[in-house]
Parts: sequence; structure tokens; C-alpha cells
Amino acid sequence: MNDTAIQDIYSDRASYCYGCGRLNEKGLKIKSYWDEGQGVCRCRVSPRLEHVSMPGFVYGGLIASVIDCHAMATAAAAYGAGTEHATDTRRKTDSGVQSDLRFVTRSLQVDYLKPTPMGIELELVARVEEMTDRKAIVAVELSARGVVCATGKVVAVKTPPHML
Amino acid sequence: MNDTAIQDIYSDRASYCYGCGRLNEKGLKIKSYWDEGQGVCRCRVSPRLEHVSMPGFVYGGLIASVIDCHAMATAAAAYGAGTEHATDTRRKTDSGVQSDLRFVTRSLQVDYLKPTPMGIELELVARVEEMTDRKAIVAVELSARGVVCATGKVVAVKTPPHML
Repeated sequence: MNDTAIQDIYSDRASYCYGCGRLNEKGLKIKSYWDEGQGVCRCRVSPRLEHVSMPGFVYGGLIASVIDCHAMATAAAAYGAGTEHATDTRRKTDSGVQSDLRFVTRSLQVDYLKPTPMGIELELVARVEEMTDRKAIVAVELSARGVVCATGKVVAVKTPPHML
Repeated sequence: MNDTAIQDIYSDRASYCYGCGRLNEKGLKIKSYWDEGQGVCRCRVSPRLEHVSMPGFVYGGLIASVIDCHAMATAAAAYGAGTEHATDTRRKTDSGVQSDLRFVTRSLQVDYLKPTPMGIELELVARVEEMTDRKAIVAVELSARGVVCATGKVVAVKTPPHML
């Protein structure tokens, strides 16, 4: 597994996202790692105490949020791993190698299969199902102690230049 | 428009949700109001500074979160407004009238139509599209200054007793 988190090569300007930006001090700062051997992208998240729905169970909005950010990172990694385009956008800065290749969410579908228990580190595994020049469809599974509690299907599109 | 927020009659035990629980001190505490005249449910939200994605735009996970919680409140209101069942679950407590009728999300679909600008109060309007004894399908529109930026379709089911 790659030991650099995908979010750690996002450019500074693209690193304020509440879910995954390393520069958002109040954010969740999730980290996604490309697993070359398995062709999947992995992430572990420990929800904070306040991220609760009914007592004992994780807030569905938090689950949607981490599925969303992890899927965007998965899309960036897939393009970075497989295309010349990504190489073009990678550049050295004072903070190390950064990439302007980022994705935004076009649509997000989450199915909540079981209540997700609090107090357990959650695991996310994402896989790119389809990929075109500017769009990827990413499927995500979120598990707690090996039990899949939610699944997501996310359409990611390359961030339009006016947003960067 | 009803001047009591739907979340304010949720039972104390059901009021710790990060998105809408009045007892979650770090939560978003969104409030939904039933508009009897229009047959819709309304909510206004001002995202915090940290709820950003790309600079200047609202975090998609926050949008998914408020659509989700507002849809659950809309489902509760629809059942409370139209069925005998809701009457059964309403009861007086030391904190006023409370209801154990609550919903959890079975699935959540969000389409992000336009980037949602930061610094503007967002408006959500929700409508129940289908309703059975235990399930409702709720459609939500989220707008900024009258422009619809995202839409949601949410399947809400009555909270199973073991979660209450």
C-alpha cells in the first residue's frame, strides 16, 4: 500500500475541505491510501463523540461525508496512477509534490444497510467502476469490525477551473 | 407556517443527532418547520466557516447532512400531521410535548447541480413524495439566493425500536 495519503498531495488551495483538507483545522482530515496490489483505495476513520445520530450509532451525515471525500480521493488516485494527465499536473512546491488534479462530487448515493456503531474505527474500501476523460464512478463500502454498514456510489467530475 | 420546529418535539433521547439534535452541543442544530399551507417543510441553514470544500464553496458533506436531517424531520411531520399513529406517540413531559416518532435514513441520493456559495443562508424545501405505514420518500431542494444548487431524494423509515 502506498504510504503517502492522496490528500497530502492535493495543492494547498485545494486542502481546506472540511472532510479531507489537511489545512482545515476543524475538519475531519480523513486520509485515503491507494492499495496498488488490490486496485482499491483504503481509509480508516474514527468518528468523534459528537458525530452521533441515535445514542450509540454514527451520524448518517458523517457517513455520507467520509464516503464522499474518500471517493474523490479515489478518483484523483486512479487518474494519477493511470494517465499522463496526472503527471502534467504534479509539480514540486516548497511543501513537496502537489497535484492540482482534484475532483468534485456530481452525485452521491448512500445506502444505509445497518446502524453503524459508535466507538469503533470504520474502514472504507473504494473501487473505480467507470472512468472517462473527466468523470469517474466510484463504489465505496463502509464497514465496522468487518460488517458492511453502508455502501456508496459516487460520481466524481474533474474540478472545473473556475473552482480552483 | 407552524412556529414550533419539528426537532423541538423529538424526545430527549432522540435529540443528540449531530445534524439536528437540540442537545448536541457541537452539532448543527438545524430546525425544520412544517408549512401547512404549502404542504412542504422548510429549513434555513448558515454553514459555519469550516464547512467549506474548495475556498468559497460549501462542503458537499454538509449539504448531504442537512438534506438528510431535514428529510427525516419532514417524514416525522408528515406522519404527525396526518395519522392517528403520531397522536399515540405524543406525550407531555417536563420539557413539554415530545414525540417518539422518529425516522432513520434508509438511503440518500444527492445531486449537486451547481457549486453552493459560502456566506449565504441556504434554504431547504422538502416534500413527501410517497408514504406507506413505515416508510416515506422525501424530495428536497437546497437553494442559495433562489438558485437551486442541490437536490436530494431520501428514503426514511421509522426508527426501529432497538435504536430508541
